[in-house]
Amino acid sequence: MTMNRVVRLKSRPVGMVKRDDFEIADEPLPEPGEGEFRVKVEYVSLDPAMRGWISPGKSYVPPVELGAVMRSFAAGIVDQSNHPDYKPGDAVAGMLGVQHYALSKGERCFKVDPSKAPLERWIGGLGMPGQTAYFGLLEIGTPQPGETVVVSAASGAVGSLVGQIARIKGARAVGIAGGPEKCRYVVEELGFDACVDYKGGNLAEELKAACPDGIDVYFENVGGEILDAVLARMNMFGRIPVCGLISAYNSTEPVPGPVNFRSILVNRLTVRGFIVFDFQDKMAEANEKLGTWHAEGKLKMREDVREGGVDAFPDVLNLLYTGGNLGKLVLKL
Amino acid sequence: MTMNRVVRLKSRPVGMVKRDDFEIADEPLPEPGEGEFRVKVEYVSLDPAMRGWISPGKSYVPPVELGAVMRSFAAGIVDQSNHPDYKPGDAVAGMLGVQHYALSKGERCFKVDPSKAPLERWIGGLGMPGQTAYFGLLEIGTPQPGETVVVSAASGAVGSLVGQIARIKGARAVGIAGGPEKCRYVVEELGFDACVDYKGGNLAEELKAACPDGIDVYFENVGGEILDAVLARMNMFGRIPVCGLISAYNSTEPVPGPVNFRSILVNRLTVRGFIVFDFQDKMAEANEKLGTWHAEGKLKMREDVREGGVDAFPDVLNLLYTGGNLGKLVLKL
Repeated sequence: MTMNRVVRLKSRPVGMVKRDDFEIADEPLPEPGEGEFRVKVEYVSLDPAMRGWISPGKSYVPPVELGAVMRSFAAGIVDQSNHPDYKPGDAVAGMLGVQHYALSKGERCFKVDPSKAPLERWIGGLGMPGQTAYFGLLEIGTPQPGETVVVSAASGAVGSLVGQIARIKGARAVGIAGGPEKCRYVVEELGFDACVDYKGGNLAEELKAACPDGIDVYFENVGGEILDAVLARMNMFGRIPVCGLISAYNSTEPVPGPVNFRSILVNRLTVRGFIVFDFQDKMAEANEKLGTWHAEGKLKMREDVREGGVDAFPDVLNLLYTGGNLGKLVLKL
Repeated sequence: MTMNRVVRLKSRPVGMVKRDDFEIADEPLPEPGEGEFRVKVEYVSLDPAMRGWISPGKSYVPPVELGAVMRSFAAGIVDQSNHPDYKPGDAVAGMLGVQHYALSKGERCFKVDPSKAPLERWIGGLGMPGQTAYFGLLEIGTPQPGETVVVSAASGAVGSLVGQIARIKGARAVGIAGGPEKCRYVVEELGFDACVDYKGGNLAEELKAACPDGIDVYFENVGGEILDAVLARMNMFGRIPVCGLISAYNSTEPVPGPVNFRSILVNRLTVRGFIVFDFQDKMAEANEKLGTWHAEGKLKMREDVREGGVDAFPDVLNLLYTGGNLGKLVLKL
């Protein structure tokens, strides 16, 4: 008899997540009720925002409750269905949770086409991370031809697309990433104009050298010292979409704010936080554009696929906060 | 023979300005050349931004050069003219500098009507501070009826108008000011719904009590701990026009950024720096509206007029940073 192996939140982590913050156990296979279908999950998405989902307190979505299945995007194949729009064999992606089998009524779930891209890519560059890059850059960053766009976590799922979309729009793309391997990947494989290694010890100077005309758009994924270095180089009327502040997600102490906050006033910057769901009404447009650019070979995407099943979830998640992944991090079940 | 007493910048101040940072001396009366007119200055405007104008380094306008006349808004009466549009007796306001007599070609200068409001008010609520409040609140803050608008430095030249315009637009206006006298003035004379005393020692709690539905718009004049307290209470999709960061202007050390910077992401806030000149093309609209509301008695304005001539300039300027003024601070010559 097949069981469903499930990751449930046991306690709210302090600092980095630990194996012991989760209950990982076999449960009976769930049966789809009326209007439901069951998905055999094949890939679980690991996203920086997950750390916020399991923290207490106000955030942009309610926290995962203690005892609940760990929330996640995931992709898989429908294996049973009582839903009129989904049939066994359909490939789907959506909010399915960290588990081998998930029930869905179709909410926050969509069918994907594995002939156009492998299944794991639909929770990566062609899924939520791709949409996040698209909306944050184009709706808030609004890069103009010839402008300089800087993005932190440039080798990651979102950042890697931000720079490529910036170049499609005629802007100059400069990444910030950790270590020479990631920087090489960002420039040589993704085609960014430059990439600065924030671990190199000369962030301010290297950023200046990489952005001789200053910075018009900064797509913010990390916060902390990198944000300060960028604020010091922003041009007048620059835009800063704030997508994430990864550097602070595991902090157990209050994190200092940017010392160069004054740059917002002096340079008349616009700093705006967002999440992908704020642009729900334009999702079809984003998916169409991302799909077209991908098919034309203009968007390179790379998944960092980890093995180990759901039991590996806590350790693999932590790679996002230690810089241990290269490309969109996914867990293969 | 009449002389022109002039304040010139001698050295760049460290911390609060000192008398010794300026050269204050009598100079020969300047004669207007072709296309110029001369103004006998009666009121000099003292504005928080002045501290930035005399600091070194990049800011939103070039710094006042060493040896140059101290930059300021001022109002006075034309006493000689070779300019076709200005004749002796005309009342004018503009960028005339801290001196008794100023030459102008009419750039950044405009005629005012002393029958509608006293001369000093045209460098206050009906001048640049009024326009600043108007644009920052309405173009960036965009308050909606029933929303809560908070403004710091609420008894000051800009803040006092922000709350009153918010109420004209149907929003709830909450001020933040220093000390019971200012708070009383803000509520009882200006008609704000509430005012929190940041010197009272309970800023966070009092702000919460004054804003039971959270904060939708925060008009930022001061920065520092007040900004942090407000960030903790912002509602989803709130707007923060950044007009000034007075608390940091005299600092000799790097000022910490807001610890609650993360609120920008979590609450999807829009934070935008601006100065009044960014809205040059809508200046006529602002002046018309401010004039109409003023004539209708909907905008209360108060000037804090100080005597002592230009020699008092350094000491009077410092009142802005110690909270020593109540209302728009002007120096009478």
